[in-house]
Amino acid sequence: MTLILSNEEIDAILTVEMAIDAVERSQAAVAKAEAISSPRVDTLAPTSSGEMRGTYGLKMMCGLWPEAGVAALRINSDILIWPEVMGNVRRDRLPGADGRWNGMLILYSTETGAPLMISPDGYISRMRVGATNGLAARYLAREGARAMALLGTGWQAGGQLMAHCAVRPIEEVKVFSPNRANRERFCKELQHRVKARLVPVDSPEQAVEGSDIVATATNSMEPVHRLEWLRPGVHYSAVKVQEMDQRFLEAVDRAFLFSKNAATTRPQLHRLPSVETPETKPGWWSNRDGPLWEQFQELPYLLTGEAKGRATEHEATAFVNNVGQGLQFAAVAKKVYDEAVRRSVGRDLPTEWFTQDVHP
Amino acid sequence: MTLILSNEEIDAILTVEMAIDAVERSQAAVAKAEAISSPRVDTLAPTSSGEMRGTYGLKMMCGLWPEAGVAALRINSDILIWPEVMGNVRRDRLPGADGRWNGMLILYSTETGAPLMISPDGYISRMRVGATNGLAARYLAREGARAMALLGTGWQAGGQLMAHCAVRPIEEVKVFSPNRANRERFCKELQHRVKARLVPVDSPEQAVEGSDIVATATNSMEPVHRLEWLRPGVHYSAVKVQEMDQRFLEAVDRAFLFSKNAATTRPQLHRLPSVETPETKPGWWSNRDGPLWEQFQELPYLLTGEAKGRATEHEATAFVNNVGQGLQFAAVAKKVYDEAVRRSVGRDLPTEWFTQDVHP
Repeated sequence: MTLILSNEEIDAILTVEMAIDAVERSQAAVAKAEAISSPRVDTLAPTSSGEMRGTYGLKMMCGLWPEAGVAALRINSDILIWPEVMGNVRRDRLPGADGRWNGMLILYSTETGAPLMISPDGYISRMRVGATNGLAARYLAREGARAMALLGTGWQAGGQLMAHCAVRPIEEVKVFSPNRANRERFCKELQHRVKARLVPVDSPEQAVEGSDIVATATNSMEPVHRLEWLRPGVHYSAVKVQEMDQRFLEAVDRAFLFSKNAATTRPQLHRLPSVETPETKPGWWSNRDGPLWEQFQELPYLLTGEAKGRATEHEATAFVNNVGQGLQFAAVAKKVYDEAVRRSVGRDLPTEWFTQDVHP
Repeated sequence: MTLILSNEEIDAILTVEMAIDAVERSQAAVAKAEAISSPRVDTLAPTSSGEMRGTYGLKMMCGLWPEAGVAALRINSDILIWPEVMGNVRRDRLPGADGRWNGMLILYSTETGAPLMISPDGYISRMRVGATNGLAARYLAREGARAMALLGTGWQAGGQLMAHCAVRPIEEVKVFSPNRANRERFCKELQHRVKARLVPVDSPEQAVEGSDIVATATNSMEPVHRLEWLRPGVHYSAVKVQEMDQRFLEAVDRAFLFSKNAATTRPQLHRLPSVETPETKPGWWSNRDGPLWEQFQELPYLLTGEAKGRATEHEATAFVNNVGQGLQFAAVAKKVYDEAVRRSVGRDLPTEWFTQDVHP
């Protein structure tokens, strides 16, 4: 049987501790060359549908973890737009499918090739991103970190909140996003997920002031972390390369990337009306041979001890979650699948719908 | 709703003419830069499961055709082996999923992002491969071609048979494969699909002798077309690069590839037990900058008239279907989907199972 799980069913099963454990074990396997992710491929073409003019993108990434017996494919089929909000270009997706977004995850068995589970990707995605930044904070943030700033109140911000609170004894999180209603809603909706007190604040400066951890989870395509915020002992965390620029990374005492293996292929249709993709704009991360890129270390080697984490209370540290990996989905989805089977949660479809008796 | 179709339902809907029309229109769109395929990504890792030692491969390719409003993703999750059969190394897949193979196709709307259809890939795959070689034969084989040789009797051979018979007035097809039982079974099983008489023969030479079209559809990783077979006026057709070598291609008067845009990425786990992949062995096709590669023309430009097909009755011509494209799946699946909806064939699943109300 192939298990169909909903986001709600996943949410009821998946704890942040499970996600962190899954990402930790699978990334340690990466350090030992025992697990692998494919490069991400984003194929883009113009589309238009009534009011909804944008770019259609079909995006795929996969990961294999033989030791755990699983592989996963994550697929997004999206209508993309890049609006300007308060002077910043953002990346956004339109809910084109009857007001819903498409994002799908397929978990496969590496032993049989069969699809074990199909689900939307949303809850697993924010947990795998959160778990990744949380893991970095476990090695890079001060042990006693109690105050956190969170900039951004979208979907990914929830994962960042839960994961950082899971690895450090956070007591208060000051939450900022440009729209007051959004930050208030976020604090209200997420308060029951963590013990720390969530406090909406009116400016990023208010949030950052006095915080031991400064985490961003925005859809900004331009830097969010500012040099003038830099303080000794603080850990700075970003969910994407665009949020943290080269000068900032050079200014901290210890900077880690998730992975240098971050190639994304973006085939595009060029001769149709212009495809606008600010993601493809070069940045510090484009210069992969430069001294900056070389001096970075990678998360997997923190987990095995080959790279050293925070050494003193005074270091400023930074982690950029610079790439998404199919392997994160394989590892977290495997945990969810095992637990769903144990609890008999979800809907079984015949695996025969997705397999065949011909040898193509 | 998202339509689930079985191979049997697809087989009842999809004619070779529909497949040829779909591939022709979508490849003409490629020539005008109005349709696109992603590079194929094959991610490989060792696996072992009792008796079934092999390599696990998760393979994905996608294609976008905005004018038709569709994109497709084709996924294979396979246990691969490379046995030696009669001195030739072959590529084979094990039916690891309870005796079945995994191969899946998802058709998406480029207007909404929603998944329109999910199905096994087998029938659509052999028809899109067949249609591609058939299209080439329509431009390259002699108008009056009546005799055909078919080497290979596996799944893809059926598609080659149907497509070539659809574009030329073939009266007899001499069928060879090394195993007598296989070639006899093939002729028996496929006879009702074509008007031409199918005749199993005992050697490749018997098949080739007197044929106007010589088509191979094997899983050989070594050349099948031989220089001594070369005759004026004959069209030679291969379903993969390994079947036809450089000397053969240089010896014919007119040689076409499906596409020079044939990059395949193959991330592999290397430090685990050896991953054997003869596919990655370099061949004439590896030298993409060489004079041979340059002198080739591509199928899409045959369709638009930018490249010239057969000029005289005496030319020997060749076509190598050197790459699989996600676009072929998008184009053929769209035809199948439209007709299935019209006839109310298949099983509807709620699209909400594959979409979500969160914005990941």
